[in-house]
Order: sequence, then C-alpha cells, then structure tokens
Amino acid sequence: MPGAARPSNLDPAVADRLTRDAAGLVAVVVQQHTTLEVLMVGWMDDEALHRTLTSGRTTFWSRSRQEYWRKGDTSGHVQHVRDVRLDCDGDALLVTVDQVGPACHTGSRSCFDDGSLTVAPAR
Amino acid sequence: MPGAARPSNLDPAVADRLTRDAAGLVAVVVQQHTTLEVLMVGWMDDEALHRTLTSGRTTFWSRSRQEYWRKGDTSGHVQHVRDVRLDCDGDALLVTVDQVGPACHTGSRSCFDDGSLTVAPAR
Repeated sequence: MPGAARPSNLDPAVADRLTRDAAGLVAVVVQQHTTLEVLMVGWMDDEALHRTLTSGRTTFWSRSRQEYWRKGDTSGHVQHVRDVRLDCDGDALLVTVDQVGPACHTGSRSCFDDGSLTVAPAR
Repeated sequence: MPGAARPSNLDPAVADRLTRDAAGLVAVVVQQHTTLEVLMVGWMDDEALHRTLTSGRTTFWSRSRQEYWRKGDTSGHVQHVRDVRLDCDGDALLVTVDQVGPACHTGSRSCFDDGSLTVAPAR
C-alpha cells in the first residue's frame, strides 16, 4: 500500500483496489448528477474516501494545505454524494453529487467554466 | 516550472498556467461531448498537452510505462478533441471528445462503468 501514510478507517477491501500516487492520493472527478456537468477535480487519500463513503458528503485532501477539507463547511456549497465509482486501474474516482450553489471558489458553477484553451481544428 | 523535466513545445503562455504535481503532470478528465459521460482520467505533461492541442487527438503521459501514448493508435479507439479547459487552479484539464468505440481497455464504454462503491445514504 505505497503512499498511504496517514491512518485510515477505509474498508480494506476498498483500499486494496486503490492505486495511489507517490503522495498516497487518487484523482477525484466530481460531476453534477442531473446535468452531468463536470464541476471540479479534487484529491482523496484513503481516509478522505472513507469519510466520503460513510458521511454522504465529499471530503478531500488538500495538496496545498496538507489537510482534510469537507466541501461546503466554509462556503456552504455542499456536495451531497449520489454515487462513487472507481476506474479500471484504481487511480481515479468519479463522484456524482447534488451540488448546492457554485462548486468553484471563484463563484463559477464549475471550476472549468473560465479556462478554455485554443485547440487546432479536428482532423 | 517545477516538475516539467521533459522538453516541450507547449506555448509558454499556456505552460505558465499549469500547476504540475511532483512528476510534472496534470490530471485530465475526458468527457464525451454528446452524452457528457465521463469516459476516463489520464495524465498529461506539457508536451502531451501541446500534442493534444495541436493535433486534435488526445495524447497522454503513461505513469506506468513512462512514455507518451496517443489514444487509439493501438486500439483504434481514437478520441477526437472538441474542447480543452483548464481548471481554476491549473492542476486539472477537462477535455471533451468524440470517442470512437469504447474508451476503456476492458471494452467498456467508460473506465468507470464497473467500479461502483457502496455509499451511505445521503444526509
């Protein structure tokens, strides 16, 4: 279980399916369940996933602050979890949620709303 | 530009907006543009993003094989790029595509099709 340095209450059967990066994390895609809009990408370690699965609220690991954060505790912009899926190689999660208010700290609905890059015409 | 060890032709104005992890990578969410289904998560360094933006085909960095791979070159399951967006803190990309065939190497349409985890009832 390389990288899983922090203590965790995650079900070992689930923990065994995770492929963590060097920091012990998996990438987490958060999608609004009604519109299927991709709202944000966050990061979870084993304990953040445990808290997400058992509380019905998304909890992430902040790579910049090196601490847990439960989405909405400060902003009120809570994510109620509907479904959590692990991908085929265990290094990413797809979490569908019911998002209260904007997902992004900028006030945008999605963290991807303002970041369009120029793409060459399709071939 | 910490972590960006490999040479890259990426536009410096775009490169300056990226927040890479310790391996020089950003997480990439791939979404089918018609159905909005999340197909997979991959990883890009600067050069993979450059190739994706300029060729109209998704190119990723393989963390396991430590090499570039252009999606579909082996399988035929090509992703034609429609749109690329960077998130608010620069560490994730959302790429909308037109997916040819299944996205997953298992033959499933999405890499998340078979990985459902048990979630406690919402509160």
